Amino acid sequence: MDNPLPPGSVIGILGGGQLGRMLALSASRLGFDTHIFDPAPNGPAARVAARSWAAPWDDDGAVEHFASKCDAITFEFENIPASALAAAASKAPVRPGRRSLELTQDRLIEKQFIRDAGCQTVDFADVNSISDLEAGLSRLGRPAILKTRRFGYDGKGQIVIRDETDLETAWRDLGEQPAILEAFSPFQRELSIVAARAANGEMAIYPLAENSHEGGILRLSKAPAHVDSATENSAIEIARAIGAGLGHIGVFAVELFDVDGQLIVNEIAPRVHNTGHWTMDACACSQFEQHMRAVAGWSLGDTIPHSACEMTNLIGGDVTNWQGLASDAATCLHLYGKTEARAGRKMGHINRLFPLND
Amino acid sequence: MDNPLPPGSVIGILGGGQLGRMLALSASRLGFDTHIFDPAPNGPAARVAARSWAAPWDDDGAVEHFASKCDAITFEFENIPASALAAAASKAPVRPGRRSLELTQDRLIEKQFIRDAGCQTVDFADVNSISDLEAGLSRLGRPAILKTRRFGYDGKGQIVIRDETDLETAWRDLGEQPAILEAFSPFQRELSIVAARAANGEMAIYPLAENSHEGGILRLSKAPAHVDSATENSAIEIARAIGAGLGHIGVFAVELFDVDGQLIVNEIAPRVHNTGHWTMDACACSQFEQHMRAVAGWSLGDTIPHSACEMTNLIGGDVTNWQGLASDAATCLHLYGKTEARAGRKMGHINRLFPLND
Repeated sequence: MDNPLPPGSVIGILGGGQLGRMLALSASRLGFDTHIFDPAPNGPAARVAARSWAAPWDDDGAVEHFASKCDAITFEFENIPASALAAAASKAPVRPGRRSLELTQDRLIEKQFIRDAGCQTVDFADVNSISDLEAGLSRLGRPAILKTRRFGYDGKGQIVIRDETDLETAWRDLGEQPAILEAFSPFQRELSIVAARAANGEMAIYPLAENSHEGGILRLSKAPAHVDSATENSAIEIARAIGAGLGHIGVFAVELFDVDGQLIVNEIAPRVHNTGHWTMDACACSQFEQHMRAVAGWSLGDTIPHSACEMTNLIGGDVTNWQGLASDAATCLHLYGKTEARAGRKMGHINRLFPLND
Repeated sequence: MDNPLPPGSVIGILGGGQLGRMLALSASRLGFDTHIFDPAPNGPAARVAARSWAAPWDDDGAVEHFASKCDAITFEFENIPASALAAAASKAPVRPGRRSLELTQDRLIEKQFIRDAGCQTVDFADVNSISDLEAGLSRLGRPAILKTRRFGYDGKGQIVIRDETDLETAWRDLGEQPAILEAFSPFQRELSIVAARAANGEMAIYPLAENSHEGGILRLSKAPAHVDSATENSAIEIARAIGAGLGHIGVFAVELFDVDGQLIVNEIAPRVHNTGHWTMDACACSQFEQHMRAVAGWSLGDTIPHSACEMTNLIGGDVTNWQGLASDAATCLHLYGKTEARAGRKMGHINRLFPLND
C-alpha cells in the first residue's frame, strides 16, 4: 500500500469494543467505511460499522474472509493472537505492523526495547521461578511489583510484593507463569504522551496528559499537563525514539513516571489510548481520526489543542447517573453503547473543556 | 414519551443522506443505537447505523415495521410524505412533530406562519395561474422570484422573473403548479441562526452564521457572524418566536436577509442545517448532538463556540482534491461517503478553525 487510500475505502478493525467504536466513528467522518471483527456479536463498534463479523480469533478462515473485504486493517487492542494477525495480513496491510505488537505484548521484551531505544525504565528482573523471584527481590528490594509478562491490563495480572508478602503465595496467585519483577518507582505523578507516526516517518505528537488511577483503572486525565519545557521536550524525544524504534504506523501512547523531573517509561500502548480521549473534544483532530489518517496513509492532522480538557472515565455504576451527566452543559458526554454496567467496566467518559492557559 | 430516553435506546431516522449520517454519528457518541429508513439501500447514513431499512416511502408496512423497533423517530429532511410520517407516528413518537413539517413544507403557508409569529418576510403573492402571476408582478414589481410552493431546495423549483422574462414560458417551466411569487430583497448579506428547542420549551441558540451561495447552493458559512448586538438580539427573538410557534422539538434553522440592519426571514428549515455544520468542530455540542438530545428528551447542550469557524461545502468535483484537503492540517475534513461526485451534489465540507475574536 504505497498510495493513500481514497475516501470510500474499507478499513477493518480487529476488536469491537469502545476503542473500535470511536475509531469507526472517526473513520466515517473522513468518508471511510469500517468493518469490525470481534468474537462477540453486536458489540459497541459493530453497531456503528458498515459491516461486522463475529467469529473466534482462531477461525483463520473467518479472519481471512473479513480481511479480504478490507483495504487496510488495524486493531483496537494489543493482545490480538499472532495467528489472527497473520491471517489478516495475508489479505490486506495491517497497520501498525507486527513489530509494534511483538515488542509491546510482552512486558519483559517491552522493557528491553525501551532501554534499547535509549529511554529509562525502572529496574526489572526476569522471573520464571520462585528462586528468580527471590534473586530479583534481593537486587531490587521491597516493595516491588510482580507482573505477568503477557495479557495484563487495568491493573490485572500483577501483585505488589511488600515486606510481609509470602513469595510462594504470590507466585501461585500469579499462576506460576513467566513474569517480570519491577522496582517500585517513587514517582510524583503519572504522565502520558499520545503520538502518531505516519508510514513516511512523520510524527504528530499531542501535549502531555497528567493521569490518576483508582484501583488500577484510569480515572482522570488532565491535558495539557502543566510541565516545564525540559520535561515536555524530554517526553517528545521519548515518543520519537519509541515511534521510530517500533517502525510504528498509527497512534501509540507512552505512559511515563515523573520522578523529580526525570521521565521513566512505564508502558507503551501500540494503539489509541484512554489517556488520549481528551483529544476528542479539545483538538481539531482527535487521536482516533489521527490513527485512521495514519492507517489510510494520509498525512497527519493537527495536534495543537484549542482548549484544555479534563477527561473523567465513567466506570461501572457511574453511568447510572447519566441524566445528571447529560444535563451538565459544560461537559461532553461519551457513552460506549454497553448494556451491562459491570463493576470496573469502562462505560463512557466525560470531557470538560476549559480555556487554554487558565 | 415523558421521560428522557436512556442510553441504549434506538433512535430512528427517516432519510439516509449526509444529515442522517451526521445525526447517527452524534447519536452513537451519546450511546444510542440508530436505525435508518430510506428508499435507497446502503446510503451514507445506513453505513454507520446499527440497522437500516430500504423500502419506498409509500410502503406503510415497512415504515411501521421500522418504527416499531424505535424508541423515538426523527427525520433529516422536510419533504417526508405525510403518509410515511403518519405510519411512523403510529408506532413511536416522531420529533419534531407534524406541525413543524406542515408549516414549512409549503412556502406560502410558511410565509404566512412567519408573519403570524411576528417576524418580517418579503412581500409575496399566491400564484395559481398566469393571471395571478401578472397581478402579483404588478404589485411586487420586477425582478421577483417565482417558486413552487413545495419540494424546492438548493435553488431548484424557482425562476427569477426579470424585465425581459416571458411569463407564459416561466409559468410553463415551473410546471404550472401552485406557486408563490416573492419580492426581490435588496439584502446586504445572508445570515442564518440555528437553534434547538426541547420538549419543555427550553431553547439553545447558536451564534449567527454569515452565508454565501453559488448557483443556489450554499458555499461558505462563517461563524460567529460579525453582527452588532441589536442584530444578534433580533435574530434570537426571531428564533424564539419561530421555535415556539412551531412547537418544535429538535434543531431548526432560520435563513435571514440582513437589509440595512433589519432581519427578514427568508426560510425555515425544521431540521439540522448546512449552515450549522460549523458547530461540529467549533462547539462542544454540535447541532447534530443537540438535535439528538432534544429528540431523546435530554436537556440541551452548550452553544457557546470555543473557536470561530469557516465552513466550506465540497460540491461535486471538489472532492477529487481530497488529498490536498486532507493534507491541510488547519482544516477539519468531513466526507459523506457518497461514491458518485455528480455536479451540484454535496459530497462533504471542511471546517477551518480560528481563535475567537480575531
